[in-house]
Amino acid sequence: MSKETDKQFVKEITPQGEDFSRWYLDAIRKADLMDYAPVRGCIVFKPDGYELWELIQRQLDDRFKATGHRNAYFPLFIPESFFQKEKEHVEGFNPELPWVTEAGGEKLEERLAIRPTSETMIGHMYAKWIQSYRDLPVLINQWANVVRWEKRTLPFLRTSEFLWQEGHTAHEDEADARKETMLMLETYREFVENVLAIPVIAGQKTESEKFAGAVDTYSIEAMMRDGRAVQAGTSHYLGTNFAEAFEIKYLDRENKQQLVHTTSWGVSTRLIGALIMVHGDDRGLILPPKVAPTQAVLIPIGPPAKREPVLAKAGEMLADLKAAGVRIRMDDRNDVSPGWKFNEYEMRGIPIRIELGPRDLENGQAVLVSRVTGEKRAVALDNIAEEVKAQLEAVHQEMYNRALAFTQENFRSVETLDELKSSDDKLRGFVLAGWCGSRECESTVKEETGATSRNIPFEPKERKTKCLVCGKDAKHTVVFARAY
Amino acid sequence: MSKETDKQFVKEITPQGEDFSRWYLDAIRKADLMDYAPVRGCIVFKPDGYELWELIQRQLDDRFKATGHRNAYFPLFIPESFFQKEKEHVEGFNPELPWVTEAGGEKLEERLAIRPTSETMIGHMYAKWIQSYRDLPVLINQWANVVRWEKRTLPFLRTSEFLWQEGHTAHEDEADARKETMLMLETYREFVENVLAIPVIAGQKTESEKFAGAVDTYSIEAMMRDGRAVQAGTSHYLGTNFAEAFEIKYLDRENKQQLVHTTSWGVSTRLIGALIMVHGDDRGLILPPKVAPTQAVLIPIGPPAKREPVLAKAGEMLADLKAAGVRIRMDDRNDVSPGWKFNEYEMRGIPIRIELGPRDLENGQAVLVSRVTGEKRAVALDNIAEEVKAQLEAVHQEMYNRALAFTQENFRSVETLDELKSSDDKLRGFVLAGWCGSRECESTVKEETGATSRNIPFEPKERKTKCLVCGKDAKHTVVFARAY
Repeated sequence: MSKETDKQFVKEITPQGEDFSRWYLDAIRKADLMDYAPVRGCIVFKPDGYELWELIQRQLDDRFKATGHRNAYFPLFIPESFFQKEKEHVEGFNPELPWVTEAGGEKLEERLAIRPTSETMIGHMYAKWIQSYRDLPVLINQWANVVRWEKRTLPFLRTSEFLWQEGHTAHEDEADARKETMLMLETYREFVENVLAIPVIAGQKTESEKFAGAVDTYSIEAMMRDGRAVQAGTSHYLGTNFAEAFEIKYLDRENKQQLVHTTSWGVSTRLIGALIMVHGDDRGLILPPKVAPTQAVLIPIGPPAKREPVLAKAGEMLADLKAAGVRIRMDDRNDVSPGWKFNEYEMRGIPIRIELGPRDLENGQAVLVSRVTGEKRAVALDNIAEEVKAQLEAVHQEMYNRALAFTQENFRSVETLDELKSSDDKLRGFVLAGWCGSRECESTVKEETGATSRNIPFEPKERKTKCLVCGKDAKHTVVFARAY
Repeated sequence: MSKETDKQFVKEITPQGEDFSRWYLDAIRKADLMDYAPVRGCIVFKPDGYELWELIQRQLDDRFKATGHRNAYFPLFIPESFFQKEKEHVEGFNPELPWVTEAGGEKLEERLAIRPTSETMIGHMYAKWIQSYRDLPVLINQWANVVRWEKRTLPFLRTSEFLWQEGHTAHEDEADARKETMLMLETYREFVENVLAIPVIAGQKTESEKFAGAVDTYSIEAMMRDGRAVQAGTSHYLGTNFAEAFEIKYLDRENKQQLVHTTSWGVSTRLIGALIMVHGDDRGLILPPKVAPTQAVLIPIGPPAKREPVLAKAGEMLADLKAAGVRIRMDDRNDVSPGWKFNEYEMRGIPIRIELGPRDLENGQAVLVSRVTGEKRAVALDNIAEEVKAQLEAVHQEMYNRALAFTQENFRSVETLDELKSSDDKLRGFVLAGWCGSRECESTVKEETGATSRNIPFEPKERKTKCLVCGKDAKHTVVFARAY
């Protein structure tokens, strides 16, 4: 490829300011994360996209196990009758279900849904497994594919089939189940902030936005660079709803039959979409170091005549950095220019570029370049592993700070619906407002602005006293935003 | 629970010699590995069963990555038209497919199969991705659930839905694709022998037993303790069959259009069934140390009066052994006897039991007990981590040797079909025999004995010269056995 076509190639990413949706689709295609599948609303996770998920999965799984959970696997197929047992659950999910009606050459007596979530199947099994308080709590997680036949889809953020984890736990009483619900929400918050470098707002969903079948739903909400929200994780206290539907009972310490209290909680491959939309810029992706499949790319530079000692040293550095646990690759190709490579790996979002040239070699140094700030820093070759690790940590922090600053800049507070509507007809960002608690006022906001209540934050920066729609006393202070 | 009921509980495992199938079902239920699901032919992988899969997965995945493969994820749904494109493939899989005919409240225009394997979907995508010889080889693996609507099912060994990995690679020419096919077969052999402690026979499948759509299929075959075979892994050279069907073409180094040569290879959760049937005994499971979720169980013993210092030392040992990377748990319950615990963990197949009592403490030692041989060995507490690790390695080797001896004892060689039939009407074990290569003679063996050709081993212990059925010159030396 010539340098001219190469530059063209990188230029094909639409600037964020011009069309954010086009930017997103360009960026993920150019970085080779996914492709569209020949089935409606489904995507293929290509290796660079899937490896992001593997790194998310591994680090979340460690956290689940550290908090006493174990993985299990339940069937993909859910008999139709199971959905009928929990009224709100069936109403919530029925419109999105694909149905298997024939198998092995015969029509099935009962249709089988492809799981959209597994509360019903797992409820059925827990009823068999749980007999006594000695069997509680049951703390199980499942990594699986699920399907929701979505009308409008967007790669990673909303696809008909997606990958996720779903935790399902059963407890003796409400207090213990609520503790679990909060523990897992906090686990998500900590993971999304400390691993994905995405600041989030943790809070409770309103009645109309909660999970179908839950008593209470909690979420963490993140702001994308177009100001819209993505629900990055949810945790539900299900009360005894599913225990009643599936008769999950146990003999308590006084030998009396009791219903268990259950929870469920999940995050999905939409986290990949979120981290791209939170961190990316006009040059392409910026991947958080802790989940970047390649954390650093090493590019030897300089004229051909002086190449040999540079390549020798680069090979040595590559081996040392790999041994030190850095996910690194080297691009020592001769047929593309360093400039092309710089663009290419910036587009792919590699957090750090390491340049090594003849003069660097003379000075016993290499140059580290941050993908976020573009800053260059010469570091001693003697201490390269420590320097690269410190730089990865620094890039993580830069990314978090940048995202936090953006979230704060685009977080407004309003008193009235008019104020909300007038300030910006595109409703960019999050808005804090008072809400009386009525479904009507919540619907009015949605109809007139396209924004939905994201959650009732645990720690709002201020408490609002009046409902933004009706002006009555506010029951809650709510975050509104347009959401993916 | 009283000691009496406890013994009853363990006794409920049917002896292998009485009824091997009953033994298997008893053993996996008692050890809490699985439960039956309320969907035909499906099981639930309970945490102890699923963790076996996680440990298999992790160690196989490391091997795939070390040989240059990367993971990706393709859709669960496969349009009906895709199956029609490869004639043998559709004939092979059509009878086993479940079909989604409705979704999102509407009847679908084209039925969607739930994937039984992904050659067709991946072939479609590879046709888009591969343009030039520079794009080759493509070395991708997928971890996924697949479904085959089986008539007769058996937990882990044959279930309607199961978990597996499927490698799919594309190459410039036959030589490179065949090299890959063999590399992955060898990867499976090495893994199954060195990690699962299961000796296998590697070889080529006959025409009638090969994968639907393959040019050549290779397998590793393992002998269960009832003498029947389990196909533990397969690797296929697919030639240009799928490349033709899906038009996967590339421009070669001479700028000419060529079809790629593809391979596929897989192992599944049936490995869990195999390792149980190869290693288990009348007391229950015996788990290979390298995949055992719990490698060692530490049981403090001795009278209550002397318990305190024992428990203190045991807690210390537990922490040390965990830190040394041993997957260990302690059972220091007071309400069940040591004898009950011994039985319990033997049934669950924990490779090593560690006993620590007051006298051991005085002598500065602990006692290690092998689950395979029952041998007890006193080891110095000073050096406990090294001793336990060495013992785990020894147990692995004992398991492999025991399985190898069993396989050799039950591996006969015959000249004629009469000899095969007369020797044992249950046809226990593997049989080596000559075969002329005709489908008729192969079918005759199956009809008259229930045995099928397992494979044509690469390294038969002898070469047979005459066909066991027709007496003509043998083209191949074949392993026959009844198979799961």
